[in-house]
Amino acid sequence: MSADLVPETRVLAVASHVVYGHVGNKMATLVMQSLGCDVAALNTVHFSNHTGYRQFKGTRATADEIRNLYEGLCMSNLTDFDVMLSGYAPSAAAVEAVGSIGQDLQRKAADRPGSFFWVLDPVMGDQGRLYVNDDVVPAYKKIVQHADLILPNQFEAEVLSGVQITSLQTLAKAITTLHATYKIPHVIITSVQLSKLSPSQENPSPDSTQNLLTVIGSTTLSSGKPRLFRIDVPAIDCFFSGTGDMFAALTVARLREAVFADRNPELRNAKSWVSGDEVRPTKLPLAKATEKVLASMHNVLEKTIEARDVELAATAPASGGSEEEVQKSEHLRRTKAGEIRLVRNVRFLREPTVEFMAKEWEGDY
Amino acid sequence: MSADLVPETRVLAVASHVVYGHVGNKMATLVMQSLGCDVAALNTVHFSNHTGYRQFKGTRATADEIRNLYEGLCMSNLTDFDVMLSGYAPSAAAVEAVGSIGQDLQRKAADRPGSFFWVLDPVMGDQGRLYVNDDVVPAYKKIVQHADLILPNQFEAEVLSGVQITSLQTLAKAITTLHATYKIPHVIITSVQLSKLSPSQENPSPDSTQNLLTVIGSTTLSSGKPRLFRIDVPAIDCFFSGTGDMFAALTVARLREAVFADRNPELRNAKSWVSGDEVRPTKLPLAKATEKVLASMHNVLEKTIEARDVELAATAPASGGSEEEVQKSEHLRRTKAGEIRLVRNVRFLREPTVEFMAKEWEGDY
Repeated sequence: MSADLVPETRVLAVASHVVYGHVGNKMATLVMQSLGCDVAALNTVHFSNHTGYRQFKGTRATADEIRNLYEGLCMSNLTDFDVMLSGYAPSAAAVEAVGSIGQDLQRKAADRPGSFFWVLDPVMGDQGRLYVNDDVVPAYKKIVQHADLILPNQFEAEVLSGVQITSLQTLAKAITTLHATYKIPHVIITSVQLSKLSPSQENPSPDSTQNLLTVIGSTTLSSGKPRLFRIDVPAIDCFFSGTGDMFAALTVARLREAVFADRNPELRNAKSWVSGDEVRPTKLPLAKATEKVLASMHNVLEKTIEARDVELAATAPASGGSEEEVQKSEHLRRTKAGEIRLVRNVRFLREPTVEFMAKEWEGDY
Repeated sequence: MSADLVPETRVLAVASHVVYGHVGNKMATLVMQSLGCDVAALNTVHFSNHTGYRQFKGTRATADEIRNLYEGLCMSNLTDFDVMLSGYAPSAAAVEAVGSIGQDLQRKAADRPGSFFWVLDPVMGDQGRLYVNDDVVPAYKKIVQHADLILPNQFEAEVLSGVQITSLQTLAKAITTLHATYKIPHVIITSVQLSKLSPSQENPSPDSTQNLLTVIGSTTLSSGKPRLFRIDVPAIDCFFSGTGDMFAALTVARLREAVFADRNPELRNAKSWVSGDEVRPTKLPLAKATEKVLASMHNVLEKTIEARDVELAATAPASGGSEEEVQKSEHLRRTKAGEIRLVRNVRFLREPTVEFMAKEWEGDY
C-alpha cells in the first residue's frame, strides 16, 4: 500500500503502560503502528510515568489479570497474531503467565511453521544491577527456551548465560551459551560497551571522547554454533528511558520485513526464520533488520537531544526549598526534558538512512 | 516540521483501553499521534476487546486509581497539557474523578486563557438506550458545565438537555438548551439521522436508499444563543465501534489547528476559543475542523468496508454446533471483520480531502 510500511503484521505486545511519556508498550505500540503493524497491546502495569523519574503512581497487573485478558482474546477468536513481543512483566508469576501465552500461540501455529514468531525482551536489569525481584530470573530462564529471538542487554545476557562478559572472548562465549543452553535461534545483545572491555583496540574513533556502542547479533547455524555480526554506533542512547523498547519494536517490524524480502522465498515458512548455513552473517535478515533499527534510533535520539536542550534552555532550573528539594525538582525537569521525541519524528522510523553497517565478527575466540 | 502535522499539542486522553482493536483510547491515541500530538493516555478500563463482541474480559479502573494516576503526573510536573479529551468512564465516581482532573487542569491554566481546552465526550448510550448505570447521568450533568466542547450523539444530547429530538425544531432547541443550561461554548452533535426525523425534505439525495448522517455544530454567540452549522455525510459509520472516539480525537487535533490558523491571531488566547460574533457559522474553527474530521472518517470507513468484505470472503462462515453457537461464532467473525482499519490508512487522517462542506443552518426554529 505505502512504500514506507512493512508487510502487514499483527502483533501482540505485552509490556508496561505509562500515562505520560514513551516507554514499554507506550513506546512499542507507537513504533510498530508507525511502520504499519496492527498492534494488540496487553499492558502489564499501569503507571503514571516511567521509573526514571524516581517516583510514580499506578498499579501492576496480576498474573491472573494477564491470563484473563488473553482468555478474553481466545474466546472471541482474536489470536491470529504473526508476532508476539513480550517485555516488562512485574513479577515472576507474571513472567510465567506471559510464557504460557507465548507457548499457547506457538501451539496454535504449530502446523504452519514460520507463521508465528516470538520476540522476547528479558527485562531484568542493567549496568550490573537487577531491577526486578530475584525470583524473576529463574522465571525467565524457564521461558526463554521457547522464544525465537531474545534481546538481552549485556547484563541480562550475563544473567541468562551465566557468563560474565569481560572481554570479546567472553562475549562470544555468552552468545554461544545462549544458543546452546536454551536453543534460541536468534540473539541480539543490545548494548555492549566494548570500550569498557578493551578501550584501546575497540574504540579507534578519531574523536577519542566518542564512545561506541556495539550491538552483537547472531542467528544459529545448523550446528548450533553462533553466526555473529556486529554493528557499532555512537553511544548516545544511554541517557534515555525507553530505548530498549524502541529497539525491540523496530526489530519486530524490520525483521519480518527482511524475512519477507529475503532472496529465499521459503524462509518465511521456515521454523523460526533460520537462514541456511550458506548465508553469511551480514546477509542475515537479522543483520539487515538491525541496520535499519539502529539507523532509526540514531536519528530519533539525535532529535531528542536537540529538543531536550531547547526545553532545558527554555525552562528555569529548579530553585527554592531545601537542597534536597531543588535536586529533586531539577532531576524531574531533566528527566521530562529527556523523554524520547517520537511523535513528530516518525519519518525517521519509516525512512531510515542506514549509516552503520553490519560487519562479520568471528568473536575472536 | 512536517506539513501534514497539526501544531504541537500535548493531550491528556482519558478513556478506555482494549488489547485488541480500536476503540476508546486505543483509537484516540493512535489518531492524535498520527497527526503529531503528544498523547498521555490515562486508561479507565483494561478490556480484552470492545463490547460489540458481546463478551470480553478485563478490569475497570476505580475512581481512586484514576485520581492516583493523575496525582502521579502532578507530583512529577507532568501536567502541561494543551487539551484534555475525556471519554468513557466506567462509573459515576469515575466520571467525578475525571471531572476533578479537568477542573484542576483548568485551575492550573487560569491565568493563561486559551492555553487549556477540555473536549468532553459524554459517553452514556446510543439509539435511545443507556449503556452505563443510571447514576452516571447526573454525574455528567454536574461536570459538562466545565467543558469547552462536548460531543454528544443524538441520544446523549437528549439526555443532557432534557429535550427529545423529534424534529429540526427540537434539535435546535436541544443545542440552545445545552449552551444555556451548562454554558458550554461549543457543541457538536455527532450523529443525527435527520432522515428519520423528516425523510422527504431532509434527504433529497438522488439515490433515495442512501441515508445521510448529519453532524450539527455550534459555537455560542456572546448572547448565549447558538451559531449553528450542519454537515451532511453519507451514513456509513453506524456499523463500526470506535467511530465516536475517532471523531473526538480528530476533532481535538483539527480544532486546535483551525484555531491556530484563524484569521484572528488572538483567538488562541481567548477563553475557550470562542470567535467574535461577526464570524459566520461556516467560518468558525469548529466548522473548519469538522469538515476535515468527517473527510478523514469517510475515507477510513470506506477502506474499512473494503477490508471487511475481503476478510469475510476469505474466512469461512461459522458452522457446526447448535444454532446458537453458530450465530455466536458468526457474530464474532463479523465483528472482528468490522474493526476499523486505521494503521495502514493514516494518510487519510493526515491528508483529508474535504468533500462535505459546512452549511449555515438557522435551525428552522
